[in-house]
Amino acid sequence: MTEFSIGVDLGGTNLRAAAIDSKGNVLEQISAETNPENGREYVIAKIVQAIEDLRDRHKESRLAGVGIGVPGFILIEKGVVVGSNNLAFLEDFPLRDEIEKRLETPVILENDANAAALGEKWMGTGKDVSDLVLLTLGTGIGGGIIYKGRVMHGFVGMAGELGHITVVPNGNPCGCGNVGCLEKHASATAVSCMASLMRVTHDPEPTTKQIYELALAGDEKARQVFASMGEALGIGIATLINVFNFPLYLLSGGPLPAWEFFAPAMFAQVEKRSFTYRHTKTRIEKAALGGLAGLYGAAYLPFQAQKDRLG
Amino acid sequence: MTEFSIGVDLGGTNLRAAAIDSKGNVLEQISAETNPENGREYVIAKIVQAIEDLRDRHKESRLAGVGIGVPGFILIEKGVVVGSNNLAFLEDFPLRDEIEKRLETPVILENDANAAALGEKWMGTGKDVSDLVLLTLGTGIGGGIIYKGRVMHGFVGMAGELGHITVVPNGNPCGCGNVGCLEKHASATAVSCMASLMRVTHDPEPTTKQIYELALAGDEKARQVFASMGEALGIGIATLINVFNFPLYLLSGGPLPAWEFFAPAMFAQVEKRSFTYRHTKTRIEKAALGGLAGLYGAAYLPFQAQKDRLG
Repeated sequence: MTEFSIGVDLGGTNLRAAAIDSKGNVLEQISAETNPENGREYVIAKIVQAIEDLRDRHKESRLAGVGIGVPGFILIEKGVVVGSNNLAFLEDFPLRDEIEKRLETPVILENDANAAALGEKWMGTGKDVSDLVLLTLGTGIGGGIIYKGRVMHGFVGMAGELGHITVVPNGNPCGCGNVGCLEKHASATAVSCMASLMRVTHDPEPTTKQIYELALAGDEKARQVFASMGEALGIGIATLINVFNFPLYLLSGGPLPAWEFFAPAMFAQVEKRSFTYRHTKTRIEKAALGGLAGLYGAAYLPFQAQKDRLG
Repeated sequence: MTEFSIGVDLGGTNLRAAAIDSKGNVLEQISAETNPENGREYVIAKIVQAIEDLRDRHKESRLAGVGIGVPGFILIEKGVVVGSNNLAFLEDFPLRDEIEKRLETPVILENDANAAALGEKWMGTGKDVSDLVLLTLGTGIGGGIIYKGRVMHGFVGMAGELGHITVVPNGNPCGCGNVGCLEKHASATAVSCMASLMRVTHDPEPTTKQIYELALAGDEKARQVFASMGEALGIGIATLINVFNFPLYLLSGGPLPAWEFFAPAMFAQVEKRSFTYRHTKTRIEKAALGGLAGLYGAAYLPFQAQKDRLG
């Protein structure tokens, strides 16, 4: 009997769910609006509905379990979300147990960036390594650390807050209370902000896509913005390399198409700031699975838990 | 039959060795000059002699093995030192195999800072946790990362190069090629250098002890030096907390007695730069074993390897 699991990627406005078999083949993928304005009960019902739909349509296979990636801090042991900007109504609620009860199936919660890192390890660029770091460049910067094939959680589940490592000690202020956080200098939002400061376009909030197109067309200011972003990213990645000496560091998210414009500055900083990088075959690459990484990672969680039980 | 192991801490000019039982009791500790100017064969003979002396005097107990802490990068699997400023003649030489052959006993090599971190986990401040980071403040800053009770090595054994994480992007130049490395702003040497720049004493190279005594006596410049060191340390530790979310970060080394002068600036930076620190019961403390941590850690390695074999 084939075995599959269901991975869910819960976003602020949408959820995606996929039935994925143990070899990593996507059997079916669906999505739904979460309409968070309707409150907790509504969103939970939506999640449960999506999972039930997939389960019902793949009855011929054995369901290993359900993994759910959530933007926020997860107390892994308890299955509780404790800090989620986008889904605040899920905080301090026994989300895992509630969904388990309704589905009568084991459920595992994981932070969304951690799930994406695990997905890249399972079926993406990280397939051939057991240790990697993923940085997801979006509104902020999420981080996921995979060590010996598993997510590093830290003692309360807050490991991998890589968007908040300081890269510019007197840099841009951050909502976290710090100044100069990596995500305030290298996220998609930071790129947009810098472009706005530079008046790259008349648009007060240009998208990374717009800025990228200008850079492609030869716009020097747009190129400066990406160089600055690459520099911040390089400082942060050099630190991670000096800390971990992992073989692979991955980037994903909106600014990735502009790789040719930010990567030279990034690599220059990493070369300068990490002798470990200079002396080892460390790879810094694009993540392969894009927006699907989190779904893969969430789906992999039940398979990993199953392996653990079997020893 | 009691069981013991022999830990060796190999320094640039001295070696120390101890017979330690499986409960962490030091049965005997000895030391010897290494006289590195006499070359490799001489130093290896000294190491072997020290181990044999201890083994012969504790014949009534079973020897679990030998662990040796070495300042430099170790290719753990191969048992080879590849980069050691103080003991360059040991580089690219099969040190572990050579010593094993002469002793007919299993030998494990480990980086000295990693060994110290493991020692603190086994018998020091880290006794009650399984994850910790140790920073040793000396000529440079060494780092050791313990995760799930074990040293994190990275894919070629260079993990934990924490002295070289960037804390001041345009700071003091470092021999590693970077500028603003943690160790150029917070090591014992950095403290001495800053004090010299500030003309804290007439001595061109005041020791941290001298500077500490001046700070104690109320000298404002000496206090500024420690505050600056604490600030750099705080930026670095905040990054480590954001990365790992470990429960414990330890400091050891010469400047530790000046804790009261550098710690307030350090904690202020950590408070500001890590919301993980603010929201969790993360401890930043003095290491307990001082200069003996490396000996304990080296001696623990054979016990840990033995546990692994027994499963």
